[in-house]
Amino acid sequence: MSLDNIRVVLVSPIYSGNIGSVCRAMMNMGISDLAIAAPRGPINYPEARMMACHAEAVLDNRKEFPTLAEAVADCGLVAGTTGREGLYREHGKTPREWAPRLLQAAESCKVALVFGTEDNGLSNEDMALCTQIVRIPSNPQYSSLNLSQAVMVFCYELYVAAGVFEPPVEKSVEAPSAMREAMFRKWRVSLQEIGFMEEEKSDHMMLGIRRIFSRGPLTVKDVQIMMGVAAQTLWCAGQMKKRTDEPPPTLILPDEL
Amino acid sequence: MSLDNIRVVLVSPIYSGNIGSVCRAMMNMGISDLAIAAPRGPINYPEARMMACHAEAVLDNRKEFPTLAEAVADCGLVAGTTGREGLYREHGKTPREWAPRLLQAAESCKVALVFGTEDNGLSNEDMALCTQIVRIPSNPQYSSLNLSQAVMVFCYELYVAAGVFEPPVEKSVEAPSAMREAMFRKWRVSLQEIGFMEEEKSDHMMLGIRRIFSRGPLTVKDVQIMMGVAAQTLWCAGQMKKRTDEPPPTLILPDEL
Repeated sequence: MSLDNIRVVLVSPIYSGNIGSVCRAMMNMGISDLAIAAPRGPINYPEARMMACHAEAVLDNRKEFPTLAEAVADCGLVAGTTGREGLYREHGKTPREWAPRLLQAAESCKVALVFGTEDNGLSNEDMALCTQIVRIPSNPQYSSLNLSQAVMVFCYELYVAAGVFEPPVEKSVEAPSAMREAMFRKWRVSLQEIGFMEEEKSDHMMLGIRRIFSRGPLTVKDVQIMMGVAAQTLWCAGQMKKRTDEPPPTLILPDEL
Repeated sequence: MSLDNIRVVLVSPIYSGNIGSVCRAMMNMGISDLAIAAPRGPINYPEARMMACHAEAVLDNRKEFPTLAEAVADCGLVAGTTGREGLYREHGKTPREWAPRLLQAAESCKVALVFGTEDNGLSNEDMALCTQIVRIPSNPQYSSLNLSQAVMVFCYELYVAAGVFEPPVEKSVEAPSAMREAMFRKWRVSLQEIGFMEEEKSDHMMLGIRRIFSRGPLTVKDVQIMMGVAAQTLWCAGQMKKRTDEPPPTLILPDEL
């Protein structure tokens, strides 16, 4: 699978907590190959571990390299993220724009996603190693994303573009017209029986009711529930009539009805 | 603008650091209305502040409500995020699928994005208040996102869908054919002059060169650079010939050329 060939490369990250958050974001998005280029020193493991949560394996399996060149040496494409302008950075595209190209390459070779340090991003020397320049869309008034948030957005876009996510299946299909009409007949009778509307106003009122139920999808299960409501209402109206001769209260409806 | 009407609602968040990270993610994506429903107690301000970075204003302007019902009382749509299955949660759609509907509503009313606690997510009672169920695509092996990461993905999708991000403009247009052809003529001569290829092999070799330069877009600026390279190479070859009678070295090329 293409996602197996995606490597996240962090250049000299400052905060171990961020490294842990990166591990979690990666695993959430089905990516597990983490490299740290030019590490600043030993990682603060408890701090990283706390943020990694259940992605400890990504943290433990990370590789460290003295330089970015070594961390990406075996990668066909090298995508560098930047928030800055200038020096050819205007050629940058968004993660969504690059995703198909990166995933296609990842079918046959390693592909690196490179992220600079928290304070300064990627240096010009680092950018020179990149074949793709990536710009994450963000508010010009505050465009600097937290490191792990930037990793999340990029990995999320690749995960979605990979098409491996299976959305939950709508278990009940859209109800057929005949079933809906049966429901509306039942509602018409029950609304008359409880004194909600009189016969001569029923056609108009039922148009309003139909409009409400047509605003969104209406499944077989939905119609079954609303049929049940009408049936029970009818039963209740019958019980009421047996016990009292008092007419039902007059309903106050909004003017436009 | 629609994004001004988007409110992020956190229900009983546990970690103040997460609240700060949420503020930053929101501001990165042009969203600033933060509400905390059923807070667990006073926020740990230094911790939240550290993660909020330059989004301190979002943190300071947050509103707190005793219940979720109060936090969303004025919201037309209420979108609740869940990673769990069951209880109608299979009707959930992704942030990308919901974005147009939410933004359309946000043109005329407040719209809430609701996120549950770090450990348990939204309760069934909370979900009942939601008009939209949202499922963020993630790896089934580890689908639980960090709270602020979930906020980031959702806000990012809305920001992108709002279409307010202006990508950097490609400053140099695609070079016209006549310009490219002038470049290829110059390359042909210069490659012959430095002994890279002989006249009889030049047509074939130039096809390879053309293929390389046609793999991606080639701008006017790109062609100017490569024309300069050829011109300088020609000059250099001329200087060389003046100073030595020794023929240039025989080039070893890969077989397929």
